[in-house]
Amino acid sequence: MPTYKAPLRDFRFIMHELLGAEQQLAQMPFYKDNDTADGDLISQVLEEAARFVEGELLPLNRTGDQEGCVRHDDGEVTTPTGFKAAYRKYCDAGWPALDADPTYGGQGMPHLVSNALVEMLNSANVAWGMYPGLSHGAYSALHAVGSDELKNLYLPKLVSGEWTGTMCLTEPHAGTDLGIIRTKATDNGDGTYAVSGTKIFISAGEHDMADNILHLVLARLEGSPQGTKGISLFLVPKYLPTPDGQPGERNAVVCGSIEHKMGINGNATALLNFDQATGYLVGEVNKGMNHMFIMMNAARLGTGLQGLGLGEVAYQNALAYAKDRLQMRHEPRVNPAESADPIIVHPDVRRMLLTGKAYSEAGRAMAMWLALSIDTEHHHPDEAKRAEAADLVALLTPIAKAFMTDNGFNIAVQSQQVFGGHGYIQEWGMEQFVRDARIGQIYEGTNGIQALDLLGRKVLMDGGKKLQKLASVLQEFVEEHEGDEAIGDYATQLGKAAQQLGSLTMVIGQKAMQEGGAGEVNAAAVDYLRFFGHVVYGYLWARMAKLAQDKIDAGQDKDGFYLGKVQTAKFYFARLFPETKSLAATIKAGNETLAVDDRAVFGWEHNLVGA
Amino acid sequence: MPTYKAPLRDFRFIMHELLGAEQQLAQMPFYKDNDTADGDLISQVLEEAARFVEGELLPLNRTGDQEGCVRHDDGEVTTPTGFKAAYRKYCDAGWPALDADPTYGGQGMPHLVSNALVEMLNSANVAWGMYPGLSHGAYSALHAVGSDELKNLYLPKLVSGEWTGTMCLTEPHAGTDLGIIRTKATDNGDGTYAVSGTKIFISAGEHDMADNILHLVLARLEGSPQGTKGISLFLVPKYLPTPDGQPGERNAVVCGSIEHKMGINGNATALLNFDQATGYLVGEVNKGMNHMFIMMNAARLGTGLQGLGLGEVAYQNALAYAKDRLQMRHEPRVNPAESADPIIVHPDVRRMLLTGKAYSEAGRAMAMWLALSIDTEHHHPDEAKRAEAADLVALLTPIAKAFMTDNGFNIAVQSQQVFGGHGYIQEWGMEQFVRDARIGQIYEGTNGIQALDLLGRKVLMDGGKKLQKLASVLQEFVEEHEGDEAIGDYATQLGKAAQQLGSLTMVIGQKAMQEGGAGEVNAAAVDYLRFFGHVVYGYLWARMAKLAQDKIDAGQDKDGFYLGKVQTAKFYFARLFPETKSLAATIKAGNETLAVDDRAVFGWEHNLVGA
Repeated sequence: MPTYKAPLRDFRFIMHELLGAEQQLAQMPFYKDNDTADGDLISQVLEEAARFVEGELLPLNRTGDQEGCVRHDDGEVTTPTGFKAAYRKYCDAGWPALDADPTYGGQGMPHLVSNALVEMLNSANVAWGMYPGLSHGAYSALHAVGSDELKNLYLPKLVSGEWTGTMCLTEPHAGTDLGIIRTKATDNGDGTYAVSGTKIFISAGEHDMADNILHLVLARLEGSPQGTKGISLFLVPKYLPTPDGQPGERNAVVCGSIEHKMGINGNATALLNFDQATGYLVGEVNKGMNHMFIMMNAARLGTGLQGLGLGEVAYQNALAYAKDRLQMRHEPRVNPAESADPIIVHPDVRRMLLTGKAYSEAGRAMAMWLALSIDTEHHHPDEAKRAEAADLVALLTPIAKAFMTDNGFNIAVQSQQVFGGHGYIQEWGMEQFVRDARIGQIYEGTNGIQALDLLGRKVLMDGGKKLQKLASVLQEFVEEHEGDEAIGDYATQLGKAAQQLGSLTMVIGQKAMQEGGAGEVNAAAVDYLRFFGHVVYGYLWARMAKLAQDKIDAGQDKDGFYLGKVQTAKFYFARLFPETKSLAATIKAGNETLAVDDRAVFGWEHNLVGA
Repeated sequence: MPTYKAPLRDFRFIMHELLGAEQQLAQMPFYKDNDTADGDLISQVLEEAARFVEGELLPLNRTGDQEGCVRHDDGEVTTPTGFKAAYRKYCDAGWPALDADPTYGGQGMPHLVSNALVEMLNSANVAWGMYPGLSHGAYSALHAVGSDELKNLYLPKLVSGEWTGTMCLTEPHAGTDLGIIRTKATDNGDGTYAVSGTKIFISAGEHDMADNILHLVLARLEGSPQGTKGISLFLVPKYLPTPDGQPGERNAVVCGSIEHKMGINGNATALLNFDQATGYLVGEVNKGMNHMFIMMNAARLGTGLQGLGLGEVAYQNALAYAKDRLQMRHEPRVNPAESADPIIVHPDVRRMLLTGKAYSEAGRAMAMWLALSIDTEHHHPDEAKRAEAADLVALLTPIAKAFMTDNGFNIAVQSQQVFGGHGYIQEWGMEQFVRDARIGQIYEGTNGIQALDLLGRKVLMDGGKKLQKLASVLQEFVEEHEGDEAIGDYATQLGKAAQQLGSLTMVIGQKAMQEGGAGEVNAAAVDYLRFFGHVVYGYLWARMAKLAQDKIDAGQDKDGFYLGKVQTAKFYFARLFPETKSLAATIKAGNETLAVDDRAVFGWEHNLVGA
């Protein structure tokens, strides 16, 4: 049975030492006024959260996977044993309200704090964590664009956790391509709409954990244009609320089936049939895609945190096993009395472990940087600071989603490898981490789509402005530290890579504008995102190493925490960062290497792509 | 439901055009005399095999995964529906005898041919294919070192398929480290031995498909030395044969449980309890490890073929889906009448598909080169040729096992990605390929162990002699083709990488001999193997591209097969081969980056490794 200890020390290091979160939050009146910027309070909250996830959720992770969800003939769904009771405790403790707006019953804590909570939920039990995760997305969209009437009625229920939420986007024929969805809405003339259609892959789409489920549904209003510009967002509750906010009449949305999946079996992935279901317009007509992106962006960071959380817990268990499992001998002997020594002594095992540690800690730093930037975007009194933060959030979100889920999956696979044959056996739980981590690379926009979002929309669409802004931050850091004894070499490597990122961006942008260059962005995007991810992680590792070395030099490293940071940074730059070398080459290869003859290479009769 | 078409055209291309197999086999009296070197016969056999695997085994793949194996209270195991009947057909058609020695009822076909059969089995149904696969390993070991008495009694049963075999190595506390096994054997004084102990992870360890199961068991004979030099190999049949070769008395080996695994669920992974079971010594006392390596080497190539087969079938299904799934638009429109175009038009989808194709086809070429080398090693009349082939087989076997299973897993993951959310749903079968492919990286010696075998034993132990031999073959090829219009650039890249492989080998070897250098081989091995794999694949792609271009130039490319090869080679060198750039950097990083402070980095009290 896997174990998990929340990385509370690392949370504190990143929040307070790396990001200076307390000072930054104190500049934001919202947190200052709510008394939620206090570092000690934040630490207490996270300690409490750690106790909850370790004690209540972790023990349900494997049983949840084994039992899965059960759909009954009437369309109702039973979640695995213990899920409902744990959710009740979660709500009773007020966790759904953590970073929610006090106007609707929220506690008004920084997003930075809920970010750490979500990482822990994902480490302990990702399938369970998706239920409140989806609710949070629904909360964000309603909060941002819902009418006061909708907000007053529904937000308190999401904030208390009594009701949960979903995102209903995908249809059988429409996944990435939401412009072709067929779900329809017609105006009932009484302020409500009749929503009809079939939605698939709806996470937390039906379950028994809450009294009501609020579906946020993309549909085309009768008479709206084709494509993404004719899509509106509707709120379709499972039970229509009574005027006093109780679940009333059953709405015409029914779970037709749940999927049998590779993993996240504790979460019900539902097919939902809407048959003239009563819905309420959220935001403006035909602005549904924009509104949904509010949820999507939150969900993308949340998905990235799944990769982070699963990588962390997989790493922790591989580390524990590597200390425990005796196999082969080492000089000097660790256990002279035993027939073998712990496998952690073998360099290749250490390589796998350090990979997990280096990616997890950098990912945590990036996620928290992003989360604090979201706080800044929403609450900083200075408009320029808000805009700057918004740009950074826009730029980093696809990286957080794709790079963290790719790394999380790879860490899970490598951590499973540390277990040898035992890693393949269900009982040990490592293979579940691999299965659970796999979905993060696929949903909420595949990682290929994230890469297109990054390169096509976030970087090239504004002529590289957002990229330039980040690049100048990096450049400043590099110039300041190039001669540094501890991290000068890292700064130099980072400076080169950042410059290369700029020149690669130019090359792709220019190619894309030439005749026949339409495919260049698509051809480069995935490798480009990975390159970019390393630049961000390199920057964060260099900063963390510098901070840590200063502490060591000041004689403040009693438990070796800072030495661990310094040595992991060294590993990162020597063993992981060099992936940029091959990525630079494959990015440059361009679409020319993909525009092959379809008939010859793929046996496809059209050959419209090839030369 | 996944589909599969055996790559018969590619088999022919590699065997006859690339390797000149017919001519080479004709030089070996064994095949010439048995009339089994004939190209047309080989093609016919493979077509027949393709029909069998496509028609009989593929349909059982998903049901086998879903049903799994069931162990009953008496220790007997029932395999999934249809497995037994398919096995009967397989035996009736004579497939177990394909490359077996005619002395014992075999057909004496080249190993090259059975290699292709095994790839197909693995594509269609890897869990099923493991039953005959293990038998083949047992056959090889018995055939090589068994006494005439054992061979005469048991080999015909393995060759006919009436009885199957297993390899019993692992114990709960001993996986990689076989020197510490506890299973004991005592001499009964009547030519038999009493074997007692517990073996785990025994693939095909108990089942209902055959009349008897022959366990080849590593055990320590009473009085033998500790460590690997005190281990002997025993044959322990489930039923002790009667003098006329029928299954007789039930032996004291019982399946105590079967594992619940991540994948290969159709294969029973058994825990076997031996309780004074009657066994027969195979080969010499205390030479069990050497004898077992006969099986292990066969099993390692067989495991590599699992990676190859699973990558191939995953690629085929991703390709079919990419042509079928309509999502987003492309100019010019493929389907002007439809709302969207097939996703194969998107460069990033093509990148994923080409990755599958490029690795699969190079892997097939390497596997067949290796298989033909095994034929040469065993049957060439010229001793020098045999020795040369044996060296190549020794060198390439760990690469075939590790590089092909790593690539196969990655292809399965990427092919699943092409399916988007549908790839995560069991119904589509893609996630099964991922789960099934994962074990190949773990068992038969983890890929980390393969890397140590390659670098430590195969390369460095003889001072680089085997490597030098291969390097000179490559060098000759490079020099001959550096100026070639079609592949000159590939030859140049290959030449550089081959030289770099040599210099990296030197650097590691020198570091390893220095004081404190004991960990250097272990620290570099995994990345070294991957680098080496690319050098081999680069060589094979360059050769295939040259051959194909010549055919095109000669006007002999009616169906575009050769153009496909030329363009896939271009993709390989532009998009996959550049991984060598980052691998060169990480190989050089050395153990210094892994010898971190154990207490600080890993929270491990010993800190024997770190500085």
